Parts: sequence; structure tokens; C-alpha cells
Amino acid sequence: MTDRPSPLQRLAPHLRGLQAYVPGDQPQGSGWIKLNTNELPYDVPASVIEAIQGQCPALRLYPEPTCRLLREHLATMNGVSADEVIVGNGSDEILNLVARAFGAYGKRVLQTDPSYSLYPVVTAIAGGELVSVPFAADFALPLDKIIEAAADLIFLTCPNAPTGVLFPLEQIFELLEASPGLVVVDEAYAEFSGQSVLPLLRDHPNLIVTRTFSKAYGLAGLRVGYAFANPVIISVLDRMRDSYNVNRLSQAGALAALNCQDYYDRCVARLCQTRDHLIDRLRAFGWHVYPSKSNFVYGAPSDESGRASLERAKSLFNHLKENKILVRHFSKPALTAGYLRITVGKEDEIEQLCKIIEAWNP
Amino acid sequence: MTDRPSPLQRLAPHLRGLQAYVPGDQPQGSGWIKLNTNELPYDVPASVIEAIQGQCPALRLYPEPTCRLLREHLATMNGVSADEVIVGNGSDEILNLVARAFGAYGKRVLQTDPSYSLYPVVTAIAGGELVSVPFAADFALPLDKIIEAAADLIFLTCPNAPTGVLFPLEQIFELLEASPGLVVVDEAYAEFSGQSVLPLLRDHPNLIVTRTFSKAYGLAGLRVGYAFANPVIISVLDRMRDSYNVNRLSQAGALAALNCQDYYDRCVARLCQTRDHLIDRLRAFGWHVYPSKSNFVYGAPSDESGRASLERAKSLFNHLKENKILVRHFSKPALTAGYLRITVGKEDEIEQLCKIIEAWNP
Repeated sequence: MTDRPSPLQRLAPHLRGLQAYVPGDQPQGSGWIKLNTNELPYDVPASVIEAIQGQCPALRLYPEPTCRLLREHLATMNGVSADEVIVGNGSDEILNLVARAFGAYGKRVLQTDPSYSLYPVVTAIAGGELVSVPFAADFALPLDKIIEAAADLIFLTCPNAPTGVLFPLEQIFELLEASPGLVVVDEAYAEFSGQSVLPLLRDHPNLIVTRTFSKAYGLAGLRVGYAFANPVIISVLDRMRDSYNVNRLSQAGALAALNCQDYYDRCVARLCQTRDHLIDRLRAFGWHVYPSKSNFVYGAPSDESGRASLERAKSLFNHLKENKILVRHFSKPALTAGYLRITVGKEDEIEQLCKIIEAWNP
Repeated sequence: MTDRPSPLQRLAPHLRGLQAYVPGDQPQGSGWIKLNTNELPYDVPASVIEAIQGQCPALRLYPEPTCRLLREHLATMNGVSADEVIVGNGSDEILNLVARAFGAYGKRVLQTDPSYSLYPVVTAIAGGELVSVPFAADFALPLDKIIEAAADLIFLTCPNAPTGVLFPLEQIFELLEASPGLVVVDEAYAEFSGQSVLPLLRDHPNLIVTRTFSKAYGLAGLRVGYAFANPVIISVLDRMRDSYNVNRLSQAGALAALNCQDYYDRCVARLCQTRDHLIDRLRAFGWHVYPSKSNFVYGAPSDESGRASLERAKSLFNHLKENKILVRHFSKPALTAGYLRITVGKEDEIEQLCKIIEAWNP
């Protein structure tokens, strides 16, 4: 067997240098204040847990392969039809399917920089060519440059991550009208913004809207995401997905969550209040903070003269970690290297965060 | 918007005519004897349910992204190292990843015909070229023809589906030695056969062994599969998979299942006993039945002169369905069109099956 060629000899060439997505730390021990991966800080409703438990004795049986009940409920509550909905094992699965369907070999896939760091990974997996359009320091949507690039597929996070900045609906409308390619509007955080592009779907067959149960529904551990799009797009993604991509427990839990909408509406309202309070506190520390419409806050722990720097951000990141508070720091691009992304937690977690920041001595 | 091109204009050409995998019926109502998708007929252990329930309050948090505990346990119990293991959202996810990594554009992907009907689908999704090597009526492994085809990637189900026939380890060894490409041995049903190719992994970096919790562990509804391979192969698949591909409940449930190994060993023994009894019964009806080493039985309801036919198989399929018993019928290839695949159920379900077969008047 020593003269056998490496098993990698047959690896598709575009996958050779593939860099995996780097998820945030997921410490499994206790005692952490976890403000690093934008999870909802509130309890899972009892009825969601009961729905999951109710499915446990049936786990020997395959799940319903089309997520029919969940799709129908999502369709009704969003004013679309069930054939305009697909459910995935997290919206990550759907983003991956979209990239492979519409951003494969020879296709140009556009992202704004920075945004969700999964887009370059799914583009590489698809063998597409990544086009990055940088933001200016105001993080306004660089609409002209995006349109000018005439990409085959555009990923746009709205509100944006990691900044939390919301783009006006009129600009996305303009993009949909002017873009020759498909536009994915990733609404992972839309519930915290009070805005959605979904009403634009009817007139724009080039729009794909992705959503998730991981953020505003606080079910990141369950892996359920969904998307709305033209039925011909949904049909393609549907044929490409694994036939049993969402398990029995996830389907039941997500469906039960939709029946707790009042609870989640209260969660979102409470979170937005804490978020706005946190922004005030950080600005009072002299930070530069972007106006977030999401469940996280993006700010720079600037020095006395208002200067942000990679070193200061890293120093505070480490100081917080030493005190068992996790936040997220992206050292690239340079524009944002001086910033930290802080998930909005419960009120007492935010108090503790501010206390530890006050004790920081850079 | 009326002059906008179809969103399908940018669809990768190889996906244009994509036919989805067709799963077996998954009726959600009660009263069915479900012998059509090879699910285990016995109860989910209480400790598995408890482990799942224990994770419910933590569902707001992302899962551990690498399935570390599960991989370590699988590695230890199978005598490999954790970097030789990957866990997927069902083994279907892993088969799909393997096809896209090693069977992409320009690559030749081989299956035996018939076998698991997902292989042509994942090959088409990858844009590979499907090579089908037909079985002869004895369903012995057509080893020479497989080797001669010199495919880049070979999918082999062992024991085979839908026939249940087990291939001798020596033949698979020979295939691994002679094949220039990668060989996936899909051991979805291996626990029922008492044989595994896993010991061949050490000397064969071109081997990938896939397994599942859906069959012998009776957790089809949980969607957990896994694979063993050389660390360089695992590393590729690992970078391609969704970063949170297996949810919190699935990781916990599968891990708890591994700690009930005695229970599952008894389940497998009981099932094999019922299987052999069913084979005897069907043969006593005059059926031709292949020697199954799986949790299903593949047989032809032959007529008095021993002739199988598509019409007879269909007639019995419908008769059973009218009596709320589901089995599986594959009308292609012609070789097997006269056969039904019957999952081995509980003893009383098999009694009921035989009673309904006896009442059949074709």
C-alpha cells in the first residue's frame, strides 16, 4: 500500500485550500457570561420543551421529510404560500445550498466586507469567485459599487453583522431592481429591527430571504432556519437538500415556538431596551458605537483622544475573558479591528460587563 | 420586472435536471404497520430520552460544533482515533459531502445497481458522472467489473440494500487493493450482519466507512450518522460540513445511545431471530428470498411456477397498503421489479403481515 496515491488526489481542485468557517467559542462549562455568538439570553418556553419531549418516543421513526407543518405555519404567518418556503438545518444549510446552486464554478458571488464570515466559506465550497465590496467607515450600504459589480449572487446581511447597522428598505429595493443576479437578504436578526424585505418578494423573483430560529427565537441549539423565495428557486434548493434535513425534535420545537409568538415579541422588546441602554453606557465610556438594530452592539473601546486600535480591542477582549465574559473580536478587516461585537445579554449580565469594563486598565 | 430573466438562468448547469431522492412514505397518522423504511421496531431507551430532555433548557445556546464527546466515544469503541471520525446530520449528509469532495465535475462515481438510491442523487448534485454496474441475479459482488471500471469514487452498501446480501470481507479487501479511487463502504446495516470492514482502515487510506444511528440504534428521527476514514479525508469533509451540523439534542441522544450498548445488542439479536423466522415463512409461501444479513428481507411473491413479476409485486404491495401495512417496492431495475423489501418489525407485526399475505388473492 506504500505506493498508493494520496486519497486527496481526487479532491475537487477548488476544495484544496478550503478554510473552514470559524465559529465563536462555545464553552461547555458553566460560569461564563456568553456574549459572543448572539444567542438570546432568555429561557426556552415550557411548551417548546414539551413539544420536543412529546416526539421522543417516536424517535425510531424518520421525520416528516418536507417539514410540511412548519412550512405551512411560516407561510401563513408571513403571507406567502408553502411552496415559497424551505426549512433547513439552520439557515447556514440554506446559504450553503444557495451558493452551490447559483454561485458555482465561474459565477461571481458578492459580499460586503465585513459581514457574516460564512459567505466566503460557502462561496469557496461552491467553487465560486468571491467579490468583496468594502464598507466605508459609516457602514452605509455601498449600493453603487454593489450594482456596478454585476455579481451573479449577492449576500447581504440586514441588519448587518457584525455592525448591527440596518439598511433602508428603499436601497434594497433599488438593488433588487438593478441587480442582474440573485440577492440573498440574510435576515437572521430582522426581528430585532422591526423591518423585513419580505414584502418585496412578490415582485422580485431574484430575492431570497433567509431567517433563523437561532436568534429571536432563542433556539440556536436546535438548528432550524428557513428561507422565502420564488417557487422555482425553492424547488431547486429542495431537490438539493438532504431528504431528512430537519429532525423530528427540531421540527416539533420550532413549530411550538411559532405558537409562542407573544412570548418572543416580549423577549425582543426587552432585548432592544437592554441594547439601547448598553449603547448609552458604552458611549458614556467614550466608545464609538454603531447604531445597532440587532441583538448585539458593535463598539470600539477608544482611547481619550477617540482613537480605536487593534491593541485596545484585543486587550479588552482578553480582560473580559479573564473575567469569564466572552465577546467577539474580528481582527480583520482593518476598518473594524479596533471594535468588539457584544451580544446583548440579560440586564444583570450587562451590568457585570460594564463593571468589568470600568475595571479595565489598558 | 416582467423583462427580468428567470432566476434559474444562473443555476449551475449540472443541477438543471436534478431529480430529488424519493424517500419512503412517512405517514404521520397512527394505525400503520410500517415496514417500509428499515426503522428499528423497538422502544427508545429511557436514558436516551432523559439525555435529550436534559439538553432542552440549554437550547438557546449553539451546540458544540465538533461533536467532540460523540467522536471520542465512537473512536474509543471502534479502536480508531477521534480525527478519523466525522459525525453528520444523518449519514446522508456525509455521503453527500464525500460525493462533492471526491466525485465532482469530471469524476466517475460508481454504484452497483440496485443499491441505496441516494447515490445517483448525490452524484448528480456533485456534477459527477454516474457509472452503474449491474448485479447478476445471484447478487454476488461483480468485483471484476467494478475494478475494471476504475472509478474515482465507489459507493458500496454492505450488507447491500435493498437485497440484504452481505459481501465477503475478502472481496472488499481485494477491491480496496485494486481500486485506484476511493471506496465508500456504507455500513448502515452492518450491526445486523456481525461484519465490518473497519479493520481494513488502517492499511487502506482509500477507504471511507459510513454508519448511522437510524437503523441498529433505532434513532432515525434524530438524524445522526458518522464515518471513519483517514484523517486527511476527515479533515476535508470537516471543513466542508456546516459548522453546527448536528444539534444539541442529537449529540446528547446519540451519546446516550452508545451507553446503552447492551440494550441495542439484545435488540439486534431479537431482530435477527425475527428476520430469519420471516425468511422461513416467506419461503414456505413459495417466495424467492435472498439470504438477508440486514434488518429487512427482500423477496419475490412468486407464482406457482416460481415466476416473479412486477404485477404480482405491485398487487401485493397494494393489498398490504389497503390493510395498513407499508412495505417498499422499487419498480426498477427489471431484475428486482418482482420483489418487495420488507423491514423486519416486531413479532406480532410479522404475524399480521403473514396473515395479510395469506389472504392475498392475486
